[in-house]
Amino acid sequence: MKQQQIILQERPNGMPDERTFQFKEVEVGEPKENEVLLKTLYISVDPYMRGRMSDGPSYVEPFQVGEPLNGGVVAQVVDSASDQLNKGDIVRGNLAFQEYHIVEASSLSKVDTNGLNPSTALGILGMPGLTAYFGMMHIGKPQEGETVVVSGAAGAVGQVAGQLAKKAGARVIGIVGSKEKAAYITDTLGYDAAVEYKEGNLSSQLKAACPNGIDVYYENVGGEISDAVWPLLNTFARVPVCGAISSYNLKEGEEDIGLRVQSFLIKSRVLMQGFIVGDFSKHFKEAYKFLAQGVSSGELKFEETIKEGFQAIPDAFLGLFSGENIGKQLVKVADGE
Amino acid sequence: MKQQQIILQERPNGMPDERTFQFKEVEVGEPKENEVLLKTLYISVDPYMRGRMSDGPSYVEPFQVGEPLNGGVVAQVVDSASDQLNKGDIVRGNLAFQEYHIVEASSLSKVDTNGLNPSTALGILGMPGLTAYFGMMHIGKPQEGETVVVSGAAGAVGQVAGQLAKKAGARVIGIVGSKEKAAYITDTLGYDAAVEYKEGNLSSQLKAACPNGIDVYYENVGGEISDAVWPLLNTFARVPVCGAISSYNLKEGEEDIGLRVQSFLIKSRVLMQGFIVGDFSKHFKEAYKFLAQGVSSGELKFEETIKEGFQAIPDAFLGLFSGENIGKQLVKVADGE
Repeated sequence: MKQQQIILQERPNGMPDERTFQFKEVEVGEPKENEVLLKTLYISVDPYMRGRMSDGPSYVEPFQVGEPLNGGVVAQVVDSASDQLNKGDIVRGNLAFQEYHIVEASSLSKVDTNGLNPSTALGILGMPGLTAYFGMMHIGKPQEGETVVVSGAAGAVGQVAGQLAKKAGARVIGIVGSKEKAAYITDTLGYDAAVEYKEGNLSSQLKAACPNGIDVYYENVGGEISDAVWPLLNTFARVPVCGAISSYNLKEGEEDIGLRVQSFLIKSRVLMQGFIVGDFSKHFKEAYKFLAQGVSSGELKFEETIKEGFQAIPDAFLGLFSGENIGKQLVKVADGE
Repeated sequence: MKQQQIILQERPNGMPDERTFQFKEVEVGEPKENEVLLKTLYISVDPYMRGRMSDGPSYVEPFQVGEPLNGGVVAQVVDSASDQLNKGDIVRGNLAFQEYHIVEASSLSKVDTNGLNPSTALGILGMPGLTAYFGMMHIGKPQEGETVVVSGAAGAVGQVAGQLAKKAGARVIGIVGSKEKAAYITDTLGYDAAVEYKEGNLSSQLKAACPNGIDVYYENVGGEISDAVWPLLNTFARVPVCGAISSYNLKEGEEDIGLRVQSFLIKSRVLMQGFIVGDFSKHFKEAYKFLAQGVSSGELKFEETIKEGFQAIPDAFLGLFSGENIGKQLVKVADGE
């Protein structure tokens, strides 16, 4: 049996384009002992993948040219030569981006969907949800009555981060790129206010939305948006630095130039901390439990933007950088059985 | 009896100059009950005073135009109407910059000079020493074998910060602005290497001096020097942000533009924290004890650059920004008795 996979054809310089990706037809194969055959249901496209397309040192190894992309995948067991997993089981893994997989059962986590769509295992109950949780709760530590600002507030991580701060009793302002997203975070997620950066005059907008300054800034985007945040930071503010999507597509030799933060950090004695979800792996259980309870009680809302079909991967990925998605961006590859 | 005091004549826009300061002759007066009459011996000039000359919100209140400057002063009791202090006692306080003072004895700390020059109470055994201690030991937390970089390495804070990191078993590199300072930090203080930023090509120099990357960056200067540090930060690096002297004399409306840090913080999961010494006031005792032991055993070295005479205050202060001083910059106003 043949299947599609998606290859890194060429490292992008700046924004990825059609030369970056290549689809390839490869053999599926048969599971050997302890292995399972999986059918891909959902593929997660995430901004951090852009870093892996370049060849520099980072916290995850770069993709290899000529090799398939890989990342978060939810799949279903269609054939099992392992006693650990049965046909029909839903699993999550870090897997190559292709339609089928033959892998050791022990490398997979079984997903208990609990009546939810299995896609949630790549979103609010997956890496983005955990990322929001650790950044906000372990670094941001919002207190009752504080002002929390989240950039990329309607994105996969932002949508969760803001709600966690609300739950902690903070006043929460989201920075977003469209009226639709503004409506989503205020009406659905319960953010106290939205600031639309594309409307211009971000500094004044932010100042008006944060009359008492900013105690926690959950950083997803970097760039000029964050430059407007620094002057508003209060004494002992915390800045969990989760992402800086505005800088991910700089060309070789281009630098991310803007406001230096040091004076603001001193003046207000700010703690700024870069992190990735894996840094908190010993707390995953606590976080999953917290998020799952919030989702099943209906207290934590979330949105997913789902593109259909394996061929949609490049589009879905590139859409992250133009802000197409509301909530978690996914590609649906096949229906479960 | 008349004395000199120094007034903020005009708020500077950019670098302070002769219009910033004014000397004024005022009456000394007589101590009332519980008060003492003090004679100023040493005045501390510090970079953070520049922020107080402007009118913005900060962690210390601005100086008032027409009012005397104030800051760290070491003085001697020449007349006492208090049973807390006796004639001849040496005290330290945050006092107006003038030749004599009449103040409540309870607002002063008596200095036990232990055979040292009382000037040390404004340097290694005062605010700069404590600042070095807390930034390095409570935020930087250098570990055996790690690489620590200190900017402003021959300054009042830097000279102590680097030695503390050496004591902790780290390899320590100092960034300095002259050959003389380079010699001081390597030959006298025991830094492993010095990088002279005025020689140019700071990125390559730093890279060569830090072949294993940088685990702690003790930030005193900001600007282009720090821009060269960010790409070298190792995973889980710590950056205590103590000062950013390169940006203190920006003119109104000028911004501190350079490399944004976010991508580096994420890639290496860096903790960056702005602080001032007062944030650690409950640990002052521990820190004084540590520093005093180091000084009396001879293990901690230090230098002072002392200008003579009350009239030297503007010069001494401005010299901080051209890097004139090695170690702590002080003004000696009078001899003790």
